[in-house]
Amino acid sequence: MTAALSGVKVLGKQLVTAQRRWLNVIWRTASTFKASDLQIELNKNPKEKPDVSSLVFGKAFSDHMLTVEWSNEKGWGKPHIKPFQNLSLHPATSALHYSVELFEGMKAFRGEDNRIRMFRPMLNIERMHRTALRACLPSFDKAEFLECLRKFIEVDQDWVPHSTSASLYIRPTFIGTEPSLGVTKSNHALLYVIVSPVGPYFPSGGFNPVSLLADPGYIRAWVGGVGNYKLGGNYGPTIYVQNEAVKEGCQQVLWLYGDDHKVTEAGTMNFFMFWINEHQEIELLTPPLDGLILPGVTRQSLLDLARKWGEFKVSERTVTMADIVKGLEENRVKEVFGAGTACVVCPVKSILYQGTNYHIPTMENGPDISKRFLKELNDIQYGRTPSDWSYLV
Amino acid sequence: MTAALSGVKVLGKQLVTAQRRWLNVIWRTASTFKASDLQIELNKNPKEKPDVSSLVFGKAFSDHMLTVEWSNEKGWGKPHIKPFQNLSLHPATSALHYSVELFEGMKAFRGEDNRIRMFRPMLNIERMHRTALRACLPSFDKAEFLECLRKFIEVDQDWVPHSTSASLYIRPTFIGTEPSLGVTKSNHALLYVIVSPVGPYFPSGGFNPVSLLADPGYIRAWVGGVGNYKLGGNYGPTIYVQNEAVKEGCQQVLWLYGDDHKVTEAGTMNFFMFWINEHQEIELLTPPLDGLILPGVTRQSLLDLARKWGEFKVSERTVTMADIVKGLEENRVKEVFGAGTACVVCPVKSILYQGTNYHIPTMENGPDISKRFLKELNDIQYGRTPSDWSYLV
Repeated sequence: MTAALSGVKVLGKQLVTAQRRWLNVIWRTASTFKASDLQIELNKNPKEKPDVSSLVFGKAFSDHMLTVEWSNEKGWGKPHIKPFQNLSLHPATSALHYSVELFEGMKAFRGEDNRIRMFRPMLNIERMHRTALRACLPSFDKAEFLECLRKFIEVDQDWVPHSTSASLYIRPTFIGTEPSLGVTKSNHALLYVIVSPVGPYFPSGGFNPVSLLADPGYIRAWVGGVGNYKLGGNYGPTIYVQNEAVKEGCQQVLWLYGDDHKVTEAGTMNFFMFWINEHQEIELLTPPLDGLILPGVTRQSLLDLARKWGEFKVSERTVTMADIVKGLEENRVKEVFGAGTACVVCPVKSILYQGTNYHIPTMENGPDISKRFLKELNDIQYGRTPSDWSYLV
Repeated sequence: MTAALSGVKVLGKQLVTAQRRWLNVIWRTASTFKASDLQIELNKNPKEKPDVSSLVFGKAFSDHMLTVEWSNEKGWGKPHIKPFQNLSLHPATSALHYSVELFEGMKAFRGEDNRIRMFRPMLNIERMHRTALRACLPSFDKAEFLECLRKFIEVDQDWVPHSTSASLYIRPTFIGTEPSLGVTKSNHALLYVIVSPVGPYFPSGGFNPVSLLADPGYIRAWVGGVGNYKLGGNYGPTIYVQNEAVKEGCQQVLWLYGDDHKVTEAGTMNFFMFWINEHQEIELLTPPLDGLILPGVTRQSLLDLARKWGEFKVSERTVTMADIVKGLEENRVKEVFGAGTACVVCPVKSILYQGTNYHIPTMENGPDISKRFLKELNDIQYGRTPSDWSYLV
């Protein structure tokens, strides 16, 4: 062998070693998981499906779950669809101590054509991704996650109720699993998804309007905080306040903010009012995404629909309790409702505020707009109206 | 048997049945767990104790853990001391979704007399109990919990470092384990405690002062919120902000609040300033417990000590960044420091605020008060000064 040839061989070896190292780095810190890597282990003991009419929200779960592990050292592992089972967590897990945790809520619907559709799932996944970065949890490819979700629903497709008044609730969850007590970025994390068949929000078929307690002493979220992210920590503290509302004879909380008692959210829903505003314009109004408000997918969809209709003014702007009280006194308020994944729209019949129980004439006004929103969204969700908001499983 | 006697027997039977039912109700909804019910299962494979000098906070754990389960149906179960092990949790567990979770941080110290002492443990347990009620988790008898803790430390006593600069960090944790997705009071809960040997906060023996970023754009807690409770949800969102501080060349965050930029906390510590105030009085100052501030045990202890000394004014009152900047300009600020369980006191050397890096002359002033606080508390903690703040294990 000449010296020159031997040199080429050595260089070749170095290149191969360098390439291996490089591939190793790529593998070690995979920046996303991939749907094509899905490992599927089917449940050999499937449960009996519950009767749709007897379902209580979020108590029954399907036969499988989707899980993906991440570590700072190795990056994302392969996604798994496996039998629904308990999680084994180190007792120092950062999700259990410092609430390094977030979730999403979305639904899959079985149409009259027996096809299964998700509703604007990318909006949920984008919000989840945004929330993950705020929680210092790792990034992932959103399209890959959607495809994993789709495959998961496909595997558990029999759990999507055969009913156009029920659906399959999908709960993506993302937790820090760092097994140590420093208040720092988690070096370990687990993304998982469970699904739960849910019955109709209004079992009677008609609307059941709710009563709200508006107590300025309890604040859900604040400027400079994290109210616009779907972090677990935004929810736990509301349970106590919800119980206070029940003690006051109300069903849910209307969350206020600031000295002027701005209205922010209703329970775990976005707040909407349909009224004739101060300038005598017919207006659909919801608070703006100023950091206090969760950017709801239903909220966005109602705004999109109303803007497409083009029949009245559609505003994202601040509304205070004084505005509402004045509107009620002047008979300008038509409908008040919450908007969210669980109910689509939920009419409000009263607001208890500073000792006065204000009647809201939502039900006396049809409620026309509420019903129209519900019908249009349901028609899309169950495939009666073709729409690019539908995502076929 | 006469009819009268037979009647007495029937009455007797009814009374016994009633008594059994009553005892059953008591048992079913036990309002506290009891230390006398402790079930102890020793770890047959104890780990090797780590070298104290190599310890990183909260990464090494002892051989055992303390657990107590609660359910709405059965009340509190028996407390268990058992081998340290992973928790098996339903994937819908309310702690993982809605942050129904809280914790405490306290320490046990081994003195030169080889006896083990806890420091004012009842203050932590009282705060834990208060936080539990805010989280809609069940009440318990605080003295029974203290006795369970004491027995647990006794079992793992070899894990309390043989060093008067190290200690055993104790982490009580209380989580909602409701296995369903409704945002409501948990019907299941788990109280558990893990312990971790920790080295000195300042390994060099001297004080290492920290630099703080004071950015009014990030708010830790707010009036009407839960900043005065040790809930997990108060901590997760701070990790991102802490990372922002590091990007700005600072070590920790100085948390501000309101348009006037009130100082609230420093990192995960309470904030203290020793200065000559606007009225030319020597004053130790810390923000008041107005709902924004965690009522720290070290905070309380420093206030108690300083008031006992009676050498200068001791105030719990609002302090703004403008007050601090003016005090610095007029050369009135002597020492600024954080106070917490991990460090006792942690001197501050600078505050980066609105583009200016303000030097704080803490170290140039000794720091006399910081050192004195540290010495007095350490002397109590390691048993050199007898005190009713010490609780013998």
